[in-house]
Amino acid sequence: MKNFMLVVLTAFVASSAAFAGEGMWTPDNLPKKQLQETYKFSPDQKWIDHAQRAALRLAGGCSGSFVSPNGLVLTNHHCVNSCVQQLSTADKDFIKAGFYAKQESEEIKCPEIELNRLDSIGNVTERVKKATAGKSGEDYSKAEKSVKSDIENECVGPAKETTRCDVVDLYHGGVYDLYKYHRFQDVRLVFAPELAMAFFGGDPDNFNFPRYDLDMGVLRAYENNKPAKVAEYFPFSKNGAEEKELTIVVGNPGGTDRQLTIAELESTRDMDTIPALLQLAERRGVIEQFRSQGAEQSRIAQSDLFGIENSFKALRGRLLSLQDPAVFELKRKQETELRDYVNADPARKTKYGAAWDEIAKAMVIYRNIETRYKLIERSQGISSKYFSYARALVRGASERGKPNSERLREFSESRLPSVTQSLFSTAPVYPQFEKVKLTFGLTKLRENLGADDVLVKQILGKSSPEALADQWIAATKLGDTDYRKKLWDGGADAIAKSDDPFIVLARDIDAQARAIRKQYENEVQSVVDKNSELIAAARFEKYGTSVYPDATFTERFSFGEVKGWELKGQWVKPFTDIGGAFARATGFEPFALPQSWLDAKPKLNLNQRFDFVTTNDIIGGNSGSPVINRNAEVVGLVFDGNIESLGGDYWYDESANRSVAVHSGAIIEALRNVYHAERLTKEIESARKH
Amino acid sequence: MKNFMLVVLTAFVASSAAFAGEGMWTPDNLPKKQLQETYKFSPDQKWIDHAQRAALRLAGGCSGSFVSPNGLVLTNHHCVNSCVQQLSTADKDFIKAGFYAKQESEEIKCPEIELNRLDSIGNVTERVKKATAGKSGEDYSKAEKSVKSDIENECVGPAKETTRCDVVDLYHGGVYDLYKYHRFQDVRLVFAPELAMAFFGGDPDNFNFPRYDLDMGVLRAYENNKPAKVAEYFPFSKNGAEEKELTIVVGNPGGTDRQLTIAELESTRDMDTIPALLQLAERRGVIEQFRSQGAEQSRIAQSDLFGIENSFKALRGRLLSLQDPAVFELKRKQETELRDYVNADPARKTKYGAAWDEIAKAMVIYRNIETRYKLIERSQGISSKYFSYARALVRGASERGKPNSERLREFSESRLPSVTQSLFSTAPVYPQFEKVKLTFGLTKLRENLGADDVLVKQILGKSSPEALADQWIAATKLGDTDYRKKLWDGGADAIAKSDDPFIVLARDIDAQARAIRKQYENEVQSVVDKNSELIAAARFEKYGTSVYPDATFTERFSFGEVKGWELKGQWVKPFTDIGGAFARATGFEPFALPQSWLDAKPKLNLNQRFDFVTTNDIIGGNSGSPVINRNAEVVGLVFDGNIESLGGDYWYDESANRSVAVHSGAIIEALRNVYHAERLTKEIESARKH
Repeated sequence: MKNFMLVVLTAFVASSAAFAGEGMWTPDNLPKKQLQETYKFSPDQKWIDHAQRAALRLAGGCSGSFVSPNGLVLTNHHCVNSCVQQLSTADKDFIKAGFYAKQESEEIKCPEIELNRLDSIGNVTERVKKATAGKSGEDYSKAEKSVKSDIENECVGPAKETTRCDVVDLYHGGVYDLYKYHRFQDVRLVFAPELAMAFFGGDPDNFNFPRYDLDMGVLRAYENNKPAKVAEYFPFSKNGAEEKELTIVVGNPGGTDRQLTIAELESTRDMDTIPALLQLAERRGVIEQFRSQGAEQSRIAQSDLFGIENSFKALRGRLLSLQDPAVFELKRKQETELRDYVNADPARKTKYGAAWDEIAKAMVIYRNIETRYKLIERSQGISSKYFSYARALVRGASERGKPNSERLREFSESRLPSVTQSLFSTAPVYPQFEKVKLTFGLTKLRENLGADDVLVKQILGKSSPEALADQWIAATKLGDTDYRKKLWDGGADAIAKSDDPFIVLARDIDAQARAIRKQYENEVQSVVDKNSELIAAARFEKYGTSVYPDATFTERFSFGEVKGWELKGQWVKPFTDIGGAFARATGFEPFALPQSWLDAKPKLNLNQRFDFVTTNDIIGGNSGSPVINRNAEVVGLVFDGNIESLGGDYWYDESANRSVAVHSGAIIEALRNVYHAERLTKEIESARKH
Repeated sequence: MKNFMLVVLTAFVASSAAFAGEGMWTPDNLPKKQLQETYKFSPDQKWIDHAQRAALRLAGGCSGSFVSPNGLVLTNHHCVNSCVQQLSTADKDFIKAGFYAKQESEEIKCPEIELNRLDSIGNVTERVKKATAGKSGEDYSKAEKSVKSDIENECVGPAKETTRCDVVDLYHGGVYDLYKYHRFQDVRLVFAPELAMAFFGGDPDNFNFPRYDLDMGVLRAYENNKPAKVAEYFPFSKNGAEEKELTIVVGNPGGTDRQLTIAELESTRDMDTIPALLQLAERRGVIEQFRSQGAEQSRIAQSDLFGIENSFKALRGRLLSLQDPAVFELKRKQETELRDYVNADPARKTKYGAAWDEIAKAMVIYRNIETRYKLIERSQGISSKYFSYARALVRGASERGKPNSERLREFSESRLPSVTQSLFSTAPVYPQFEKVKLTFGLTKLRENLGADDVLVKQILGKSSPEALADQWIAATKLGDTDYRKKLWDGGADAIAKSDDPFIVLARDIDAQARAIRKQYENEVQSVVDKNSELIAAARFEKYGTSVYPDATFTERFSFGEVKGWELKGQWVKPFTDIGGAFARATGFEPFALPQSWLDAKPKLNLNQRFDFVTTNDIIGGNSGSPVINRNAEVVGLVFDGNIESLGGDYWYDESANRSVAVHSGAIIEALRNVYHAERLTKEIESARKH
């Protein structure tokens, strides 16, 4: 099986690209030859297994790693930010003041964080392909969904709470792999610095370098109410890596689009990126202004605003790449080459020739339905936590009554623990803030579908977005965790009887929402899946060299080195130091250093390296990834990429793409001399075995 | 001269397009042959002169018309909205309550409205071309600016206050015409309905149809403190126009881009439309949320918010056209055809061949400078009325010291009255609101140029956008009209001595702002001007039939008819009636009818036609244009186009583009039976001579 996989894995190739930095490699297919050639580095299977299991995924969309045998986890502040906010109150604002559990007993559970450790990878390509063979449209979609749910369910077995299995689609359908994870849902907060230091420079400096951020957060995995014992973890290197030294990032890049067709790239640009940016921009304005109304508003909106600003800047960077005519020209050329190759041979033409046009046709359908799909099925038009809960409850009740293989994917047996973790979260819901967001959503619903749309009329009736938001939020009980639990446990009967306004709404529009989802899945998604698979196969026939698959929010290894880059004619040096943060400070947010740092200045080593850049090929989802050296020691903590790296969604450019990390030495220096976090520092340092 | 003009005017042609609806024709070149063929309509010179002088331009960006011999002016509510708001106070909110001057003495001056009546058109092509012949880059730019300023100044002569002359660039440099206007700066508000009725349906219904808006405003031009006596005006037709009847719109379409090159279209899409939309979206969010804080905030932000929402929706519609692959394909095909024609002949190739690439190169330069240009020179990064005043004062002082032909265009002698009208406006400035806008602008300045940008550092120093906005607004005196007048009259000396923070800022960054403007004018604008002229000439050589020039915010005639259209498979009827407004009302903004209408319902003719659509080819700037019939009677008042018409910037599609107008009968019905505006109704009705 392993053998077969390797054959297929070496299959789908764009070109035998220069190695330097490029590539997000699956643990079972590292570019060993190039590593040996470029870096004289030959990791053995033990090294790889160790790194694979010391690294972690945060299911909500980040990466991390174990850094002690007692389940201590290093990740970014911005990956634990929502937990820190959820644990805060108007009186105790840990976002502002930071958090440190002086003793184990002070470590507090994060309501919504789940950690996944990748334990094994198996190949299920044959089984999936067999199930979908000869099918298309709705049949294809159903068959694929069903076989995946079956495989995952079998894999999880009875240990649902601690096992997670995902069928992962690599190479756009070239390979289906089964990723088996150990799942940790009891995850507690150990340490977080003040936001002012974690995100020093704020939005203006985000995706920029030079940088002076201590974007770190420390968690601990628990099992049976005790710190989890873990065999694999990364010790810290205090000295970090030097310029040109090999750096390895082990993390979970969320998704790349390096193999899209021109039609898909255009659709991504016009139908996804731009509408998302417009929506984020307006939402950002609303929330910024909401925040300016007072300290408490500022506190409760902080996490949302950060997420919005971060996404906005990331998408803006991607859009700039998609607007670069040279880039489209390159992609067009690559596509033409491959299509010419396919069309040159009658057999190939019959087999693959129609794939591009089929995808283009699906994109036309998508163009017609995407707004409605996003507003109704993806809930952008009813943007409130209350509605998310209601949707999960209404659908959960009906889906749990079906056989596993027929359910909506997110309600399959193996995924229910994630659903209930969100649903039973104890994180506070702020009615005042929900009202702002819901009013906004309903306004956009009406604006985008029009006041005469049947569903808009059904939802708004003779009322207005504001009045409805007021009325519903005053009446709902879904802000109460116990109430949600009761409804979940009560099943279909409880849901049918509920008169909670959000449950009523979710129930009333469920048929329409499912219908648009079905159309999307059958007429867009399944067409794209099926035809991407054909294109991938054609690419293999033509190029046939080893390459990495597009990122899929699963574990990947990226190999690079510490290196500056040229920006507007200036060489940007790869390191900053702690002294630089003091020089950059203005005293005003987001350039205000926290008091702890101002107080600690005399004791600090101002020459200690603070942040640094490497050529590693990363993307969103890699946040919190460890940067390790060839000895598998932590030399840094990835928290960002430069602006230029945002085009990395579509290609990698070694001359400009840089990942940005906190230096391991800065972490130790800050923990010891600013935060006096002795228990924590000691645990990290004593883990250093080598 | 007239003869020469006609020859040139029939010159620059895309194709001999089907006539139906398409075309924005200059008064001196109506499509007489087609009018005769299609509508059996043959207007004589007297008819044309009459219509030309009864129609009006509102210099701020709208159209209107005289409807009585005593200077009564009909336009849109949304064209007088900012005046209505400026005249309102927290106690007297005319936006909400509407406004009606029962007697002449109650008509109040609008602080910033200027009316222009087009009195004559002369051709100055030869003089301009002679001045720029053989020049390029900065020389071209200077020469063109200088000759235009000279021509305008000579044309105005000593009667600056009442004469305005603009050199108008038609056919992208094919023709330069001198438009001589009578200028009215004493313009008073006579009537405005409640915003709730003028803009019933608000943003959700904007650019849609069916529609139920009384989007009208009535002004009066004054001269020597008395109502202006005007010889040419349009009488009202109570019955309006029937389906398929010829409708003529005489107005000032702001600008179309029907002849852009592909490089320009791409640049428009990526560098102008999308960034503008993103900026508008966020600004909209900020202002929406600001408004939600209270009744007074809602009042003072209303006009800005309307402007933003309107622009957003309009640009969004345009972007959708620019994203339609079919449209780009068509434009690409047209361009290729013309270029192939040029390249087929060596002489033509030498003369015109490089023009497209030259423009494309200029677009690359634009791509690099547009953000800085807009933020600094166009003041988007310092978005406050205070700064606009400061900029006008600082530049005004230095420009007035130069010879006319060397000044920045907007400070040429003939344009100074417009500068001083804005500068000496008595409209209130709200510090609380300015603070929100300025904080936003400075934040975007830092975000877009980066915290390390030299100019950003110079402006922000070690402070923050919010702190600076606070500090500057607390200290400035520029909200005071008299203070501004004093600084203006004090000239360069007063400016040099001023320590007003906005004057200091405008002074400090003036050199950098002028530098980026100079680069834009020399490396982008002048290259585009020069090469567009070449392309226009090539187009003439190839096609050589009569066509209309792109819109230039000068007077145009558009010929169409009352006609519905097919939308998503349904035929939309061309008329709505007053009863429909009552059916659509919900009682919640923006679907809440004002009390006056609810009270008047029993007396109203619910079958009276309210709004209607026609095939006339219009665009932004046409707002407030009269719709007249062949007898030059007002049958309607243009206030909008449908969503489909927004692509009209780039082409005209008769099957879907519709202009939306208020029916003349609805105006009379409302004035008489809702507003009991007897003096006004009488004046309008007694103007009906025929």
